[in-house]
Amino acid sequence: MEPILVVFSGGQDSTTCLMKALAERGPGLVHTVTFAYGQRHALEVELAEAIAKEQGVASHKTIRVDWYRDITRNALMDKGTPIAWEPGAATPNTFVEGRNALFLLAAAIYAKGKGIRELMIGVSEADYSGYPDCREAFVKSMNQTLNLAMGCTFVIHAPLQHLTKAQEWALADELGCLDYIRARTLTCYEGIPGDGCGKCPSCKLRAAGLEAYLRLKGARA
Amino acid sequence: MEPILVVFSGGQDSTTCLMKALAERGPGLVHTVTFAYGQRHALEVELAEAIAKEQGVASHKTIRVDWYRDITRNALMDKGTPIAWEPGAATPNTFVEGRNALFLLAAAIYAKGKGIRELMIGVSEADYSGYPDCREAFVKSMNQTLNLAMGCTFVIHAPLQHLTKAQEWALADELGCLDYIRARTLTCYEGIPGDGCGKCPSCKLRAAGLEAYLRLKGARA
Repeated sequence: MEPILVVFSGGQDSTTCLMKALAERGPGLVHTVTFAYGQRHALEVELAEAIAKEQGVASHKTIRVDWYRDITRNALMDKGTPIAWEPGAATPNTFVEGRNALFLLAAAIYAKGKGIRELMIGVSEADYSGYPDCREAFVKSMNQTLNLAMGCTFVIHAPLQHLTKAQEWALADELGCLDYIRARTLTCYEGIPGDGCGKCPSCKLRAAGLEAYLRLKGARA
Repeated sequence: MEPILVVFSGGQDSTTCLMKALAERGPGLVHTVTFAYGQRHALEVELAEAIAKEQGVASHKTIRVDWYRDITRNALMDKGTPIAWEPGAATPNTFVEGRNALFLLAAAIYAKGKGIRELMIGVSEADYSGYPDCREAFVKSMNQTLNLAMGCTFVIHAPLQHLTKAQEWALADELGCLDYIRARTLTCYEGIPGDGCGKCPSCKLRAAGLEAYLRLKGARA
């Protein structure tokens, strides 16, 4: 097993990834990187750091990409803008242009200096088809571009790529961390950890997935 | 003609690109972006701004990617490190990991917000084969990745891609700006504009190309 660097936000998706990497490789081979990019909730960055420490990862790094706000605007960075998906718009106004490309590129540059060639990211195209940089076509193309840019062979793992939220909760349950992820992670657009505000699109998606999984589990039992 | 954003450092290569874009589209359609990434010579960023103003571009933007030094080290950012190409190393120690990928990604994010879809970068693989992110394979893959990441169609122009330094000087001469580029741009690793220190690998390459072009021109005359 080789070392791996997990792009880690402290949300449900990347925490599920982290748990999977830890289960497969052990904490000595799992590194995390978090991006402070001017997101609405500074708590996100602190929480990611706290979860990484709790899980005993080999190293955790926060990279501050403060200039992001200077070149693009969106509802995730602008506290004053209500979250919305305007009719006719290709993506909701929470879409941060180029975010996963930037995260993967900076993670790869940082990983290369540490002798790490495997990266993991918690993107999924099953529930988020409005975000182009969550699709497999993007991830594969990005992997190829990173290899060509830096003259080495990276492997990007995206274990949630084709999982719905319900399947993601099932994976967390298999990994024995469903309750931990439910209680500890932050996915809510209002910045409330755990079950969140219950009203924003992100909380609704998370709750609907959990409900669907728990219903299925109950029916099987 | 559509607007275009030139990735612009104030060096010979990107200034030749800028002049080509200006000649083809006129200043109203040409925008420039410069990156302050902790390079050895702060002068580079100021000089880029000055040249952009002199040439009357439609807009000029400096993006500060200060965090770059925090995730990778190299001789271009570390003033104390002598420039070298260690025997057996894939690239000289001036290689900044992922630099052209970062520049193109940030430029594309910024361009999208301004309604610009064409980008220009002064990479060449003829004289610089040690740098993987100057090769055509990288540029084409990056273009594809940007389109997939942001769900739109960018066009990356790399007009110097297959030109040697001598051919690049010939292009500058055709554009009527050979003397301007020779006197005004900064390519030298020691931070000396114009003909530079004359000793670093960058100055030697530039001078050898100029000499070759002027010899050829003399022979033709």
